[in-house]
Amino acid sequence: MKQSHLFTKTQKFAPKDEITKNAQLLSRAGYIHKEMAGVYSYLPLGLRVLKKIEDIVRHEMDNIGGQEIRMATLHPSEPWKKTGAWNNVDVVFKINSRTEKEYTVGQSEEEIVTPIAGEYAKSYKDLPVMIYQIGQKYRDELRAKSGIMRGREFGMKDMYSFHSTQEDFDNFYEVAKDAYLRIYTQCGLEAKATEAAGGSFSEKISYEFMVITDAGEDDIFYCTSCSYCVNVEISKQNEADTCTRCNKGTLKRAKASEVGNIFDLGTKYAKALSFQFKDTEGKNQYPIMGCFGIGTTRLMGVIVEALSDDKGIVWPASVAPFDLHLVAISGKDKEKQALVSAKADELYTALHKAGVEVLYDDRIDLSTGVRLAESDLLGIPYRLVVSEKTLEKGAFELTTRATKDTEYVSTVQLIVGKIFKGSRY
Amino acid sequence: MKQSHLFTKTQKFAPKDEITKNAQLLSRAGYIHKEMAGVYSYLPLGLRVLKKIEDIVRHEMDNIGGQEIRMATLHPSEPWKKTGAWNNVDVVFKINSRTEKEYTVGQSEEEIVTPIAGEYAKSYKDLPVMIYQIGQKYRDELRAKSGIMRGREFGMKDMYSFHSTQEDFDNFYEVAKDAYLRIYTQCGLEAKATEAAGGSFSEKISYEFMVITDAGEDDIFYCTSCSYCVNVEISKQNEADTCTRCNKGTLKRAKASEVGNIFDLGTKYAKALSFQFKDTEGKNQYPIMGCFGIGTTRLMGVIVEALSDDKGIVWPASVAPFDLHLVAISGKDKEKQALVSAKADELYTALHKAGVEVLYDDRIDLSTGVRLAESDLLGIPYRLVVSEKTLEKGAFELTTRATKDTEYVSTVQLIVGKIFKGSRY
Repeated sequence: MKQSHLFTKTQKFAPKDEITKNAQLLSRAGYIHKEMAGVYSYLPLGLRVLKKIEDIVRHEMDNIGGQEIRMATLHPSEPWKKTGAWNNVDVVFKINSRTEKEYTVGQSEEEIVTPIAGEYAKSYKDLPVMIYQIGQKYRDELRAKSGIMRGREFGMKDMYSFHSTQEDFDNFYEVAKDAYLRIYTQCGLEAKATEAAGGSFSEKISYEFMVITDAGEDDIFYCTSCSYCVNVEISKQNEADTCTRCNKGTLKRAKASEVGNIFDLGTKYAKALSFQFKDTEGKNQYPIMGCFGIGTTRLMGVIVEALSDDKGIVWPASVAPFDLHLVAISGKDKEKQALVSAKADELYTALHKAGVEVLYDDRIDLSTGVRLAESDLLGIPYRLVVSEKTLEKGAFELTTRATKDTEYVSTVQLIVGKIFKGSRY
Repeated sequence: MKQSHLFTKTQKFAPKDEITKNAQLLSRAGYIHKEMAGVYSYLPLGLRVLKKIEDIVRHEMDNIGGQEIRMATLHPSEPWKKTGAWNNVDVVFKINSRTEKEYTVGQSEEEIVTPIAGEYAKSYKDLPVMIYQIGQKYRDELRAKSGIMRGREFGMKDMYSFHSTQEDFDNFYEVAKDAYLRIYTQCGLEAKATEAAGGSFSEKISYEFMVITDAGEDDIFYCTSCSYCVNVEISKQNEADTCTRCNKGTLKRAKASEVGNIFDLGTKYAKALSFQFKDTEGKNQYPIMGCFGIGTTRLMGVIVEALSDDKGIVWPASVAPFDLHLVAISGKDKEKQALVSAKADELYTALHKAGVEVLYDDRIDLSTGVRLAESDLLGIPYRLVVSEKTLEKGAFELTTRATKDTEYVSTVQLIVGKIFKGSRY
């Protein structure tokens, strides 16, 4: 994409009321637009990042047998009254209508997905069923000050699973946990599966997935030796205690951000919404249900919090809006400008043909200093500068955003090889 | 995808309150699930169709310079009050919150997109800007009885364009009109650009795009010779009159379904929401704004209304959930079943490898008659039967859903060639 065509521009300052790094950087770089506290629109570059995150999540959910659907977000109140959430969950929005029916917009979808699964799964042979969607969720939050990390509207992948036995659920729980950890790794984060309280959804222990970052709202203890990790809130141990799981490491305290959760919902929703199946003996049973959430917009925010520096965002290649930022630079001399532009145009075409996603800053008349600072703020993994100097040299300046390392590369093939490093090329 | 894995099943009867063909067929085939009148969830097969429609629309919008974003659907009430829609538009939902702020869920997005465009477009050099999204819309309809053709929640592509001059708008209007007609052609429909009243959005004449179908809610006159078409509601002529545009054809009356619209919004929203730009002389001006809508879920419904027969849906290849329905058929003999299944498995793998999207009915134990009727109901463009008979013959039975023509094909290459007919292969 040519940057002269992109309708957004970078800005020197973020809106004054933005106090988090994620909202400040994403606003200034033109990835998001604030509509009100906790509600954002995703602009062209931001939507590209979000879609890449969604694709990583979608791939892993498909991989463990998930079937994607798109559930309604406008819900009738009836199932919410049956499960009790209409009155018990304080973040449920309530909508009045001209028909005098009451509606809500989904803050979660147990009330909708349980009857859908129940309509088709009549026998133990039809189970397990794993159903997921990627879409918008709505919560009537009193305060929303964390940028895109906690919203009144936010993007979420929510998967629901239904099982004929507790054992089958427990097995799938482990499979899903591994898929979650793979998702975070692909997003450039190191997450820990953390024991936590079940929250309003469940009375059992649940898993939260936590990324260690100074911007985190939670406190965790993690073992210096094994994978044990626990939310400080429910831990029975203290910092520096020996880990009771491995008896080797000690517990270390850290700030962390939640990037996903898994709940064992038991038979609560199946009972409230009358979903029964015939077991191997022909008897009616309620299935065991699980809920597996990942806030996709929140994940985008956590990536920015964890992976940025004093100049701007540093996207991991997997979710970057583009692979490469091609920047054409020249002085005021029109003839030289034309030479540089012609070469940059040629590279843009060749790189595009080689499968590289390129943002091409073709605004050669604008200040070089401003454009390079913009490039750092945008955080695309690689920058390729074409200038009078590089034309003389017969090679282009390729800079890695994360390390600031610069090298000179002379051919499209070398550029492509460097960018994809064998992982994609 | 193996059909034994698909969690939905076809059903003999649609819900009793579904009176339209689109809702009856899509419910019975397991494409959609009704949550309440006018609100549906899209199940795995339905979501596959919807995504293909969205991709066709996305491609054409990108092609004419549209930039995709994802706008918030939860809106603060302030911009809606500024434009007057909060009190004047009866389908606007109103949401109360714990923070005592009033919200709505978008029934259209002029109130959100105008400030976004205005934040970046400060000069005539920044215009035109074309911004679109594909997402959910919400309307507080009193009645919703048309299945997925008119919903309280529905999918929509809405594009908004901003222009420095009326002439630039008029030119783009024609470009967008052509893109719209290409979209409908690709969806297997023949649509007509129809002059209509502006509705609540605009006082000017607007274009509606109409597909002639008996299920249509509108009446149109179309010329038998040229492309002239007009909604009967605003026509100054009568049936059988000579067309005043070409002076050759006569006007014919038909039932039609709206599948899109284009409005010239003038400067109404820019004025209400304070979006000004500097013109070539440095003076402040309000941009001319256009709104370009296509209901994606409605389009899916119209395709079903227009393209179905007494046995079920007949998807055009471009939006079908799968290219091919592979059906393995055998008697009760376990040895013969194993032979048929092995061959069908082999074909499934080979076709998948060749880029064919296959739904594989591997439920060889179930009734053949039921499964073939299900296959007709699902409406996948081609069906390939593998049975004891076809094994003997050394060729497989390939049936075209639309024409019911059957032929015998002996190799994967021939099957693939037939399905893609050179358009994709």
